[in-house]
Amino acid sequence: MAKNKGRHEAEIRIACIQMEPKVGRKKANVAKSLELLGKAAGRGAKLAVLPELANSGYVFETREEAFDLAEKIPSGPTTQAWCAAAAEHDLHIVAGIAEREGQTLFNSAVVIGPEGYIGTFRKVHLWNEENLFFEPGNLGFPVFHTPIGRIGAMICYDGWFPEGYRLLALQGADLICVPTNWVPIPGQDSKREAMANILCMAAAHSNSVFVAAADRVGRERGQPFIGQSVIVSYTGWPIAGPASSKEEEIIYADANLSDARRSRNWNEYNQVLRDRRSDVYDEMLGTGTKPGWY
Amino acid sequence: MAKNKGRHEAEIRIACIQMEPKVGRKKANVAKSLELLGKAAGRGAKLAVLPELANSGYVFETREEAFDLAEKIPSGPTTQAWCAAAAEHDLHIVAGIAEREGQTLFNSAVVIGPEGYIGTFRKVHLWNEENLFFEPGNLGFPVFHTPIGRIGAMICYDGWFPEGYRLLALQGADLICVPTNWVPIPGQDSKREAMANILCMAAAHSNSVFVAAADRVGRERGQPFIGQSVIVSYTGWPIAGPASSKEEEIIYADANLSDARRSRNWNEYNQVLRDRRSDVYDEMLGTGTKPGWY
Repeated sequence: MAKNKGRHEAEIRIACIQMEPKVGRKKANVAKSLELLGKAAGRGAKLAVLPELANSGYVFETREEAFDLAEKIPSGPTTQAWCAAAAEHDLHIVAGIAEREGQTLFNSAVVIGPEGYIGTFRKVHLWNEENLFFEPGNLGFPVFHTPIGRIGAMICYDGWFPEGYRLLALQGADLICVPTNWVPIPGQDSKREAMANILCMAAAHSNSVFVAAADRVGRERGQPFIGQSVIVSYTGWPIAGPASSKEEEIIYADANLSDARRSRNWNEYNQVLRDRRSDVYDEMLGTGTKPGWY
Repeated sequence: MAKNKGRHEAEIRIACIQMEPKVGRKKANVAKSLELLGKAAGRGAKLAVLPELANSGYVFETREEAFDLAEKIPSGPTTQAWCAAAAEHDLHIVAGIAEREGQTLFNSAVVIGPEGYIGTFRKVHLWNEENLFFEPGNLGFPVFHTPIGRIGAMICYDGWFPEGYRLLALQGADLICVPTNWVPIPGQDSKREAMANILCMAAAHSNSVFVAAADRVGRERGQPFIGQSVIVSYTGWPIAGPASSKEEEIIYADANLSDARRSRNWNEYNQVLRDRRSDVYDEMLGTGTKPGWY
């Protein structure tokens, strides 16, 4: 068969928009996100990732405040504004948003294309006081098929669970977008990249997928955030960032997402996703490993 | 309740012995391993890890050669020699060995204490031409209870499967020992640590376990190995190494293995091993993610 690499798909420019939402100032946060989406598109981005809870901010004081800031998806004003931007700029967007469904809140990410709303991911693993406001995600780890490739999403603490990355990769994800609000963690070596970045690299490599993590910066009600947004190749090595730990910044990487699929046969015997020993894992998870030793 | 940290357990010295076995020269390889075990014990080590296939070497040319070099466990001479060394030096040992059971070979690790043979791990995920000689491991991922803590083992390519680390951590492992023969991989950034080290760091952090990986150096029948043995704290940061990429070397770290258990409540809500959403993973693995998209 003829080798015609490059005919079936093209390199695209991915942008991670590291910004500083202010809690409660939804109008201003959305306006700023629209400005930065326009800027990224102006520099050629075809896919842009915004941080976790980019419209609402993160550190809620009360349930009332969280409920007031959350919106229906896709009918709420934030999703509608992002859909308009996606159409205007011929852009795919993955963005963190406070979602309200009836009396229930989720820490969600919307996936939007130039032709409109595509789908929602709801954060599966809640961190710290998010447990006071949000329900754990109930949509699993969906993969969305788009003209630029198969896209999955995870949010912040989800990245501490290799299970999530693996489930997305097993469904064929080429790129996993991570809207996030990473916070400082104990034991961080100040002389090197964040442990959160290390987790992105390991996940990208061991699943042969691209990972694009857009973090926020700044401090809210005493809680600092660490920036350092990063775009990682399917090889596991960063191709953009880590970004600054303090400043708003857009990082860009040009990537052919098909390379993730094309490069998984590491030798004549091994393809990491097919080498999984589900016989072993399933038997152990079913029988021996659930008691609470840990 | 009284806080009496330090009464129940003590810091121990862990050693990873990075050596260069020569394929086929089993007698010389075992003699060298005994010399280095003695050296590590002389410097206070209570646990020593040797590389994958430390007795036989790695690059077999024929099945016949592999069969000739493999031994029964624990009755074979290599395991017996290591048991004697463990008794003499009051040492725990985790060491890679070519195992023969009847007409079947396994790429195994023996776990040995001062009082003798404890158990065996058989490499679950075979790499490259290992598939010509060995059977995939059929003992799961066992955790061994010892006076110095709960110890698990994985071998080389097993480390590309976060499932293995997770299964060991879920059974309460404090320390995961990794006899390995890491080889160069495409895309490695020559200016920084090996991707294999990144995987160890991510696994240690996201499971809150210690990881001690002992690699080999040198070249066999054209196949180079990359050294860079490393001991990683439960925080995810190296506490010894990475070692040289070319030289034989012993790296040492002093660690209180109980810290892995003690430090898992990251805040009032989260403990990473208990935050797993097995409801989500199990349902997805059972239904949606097995078709071969990848």
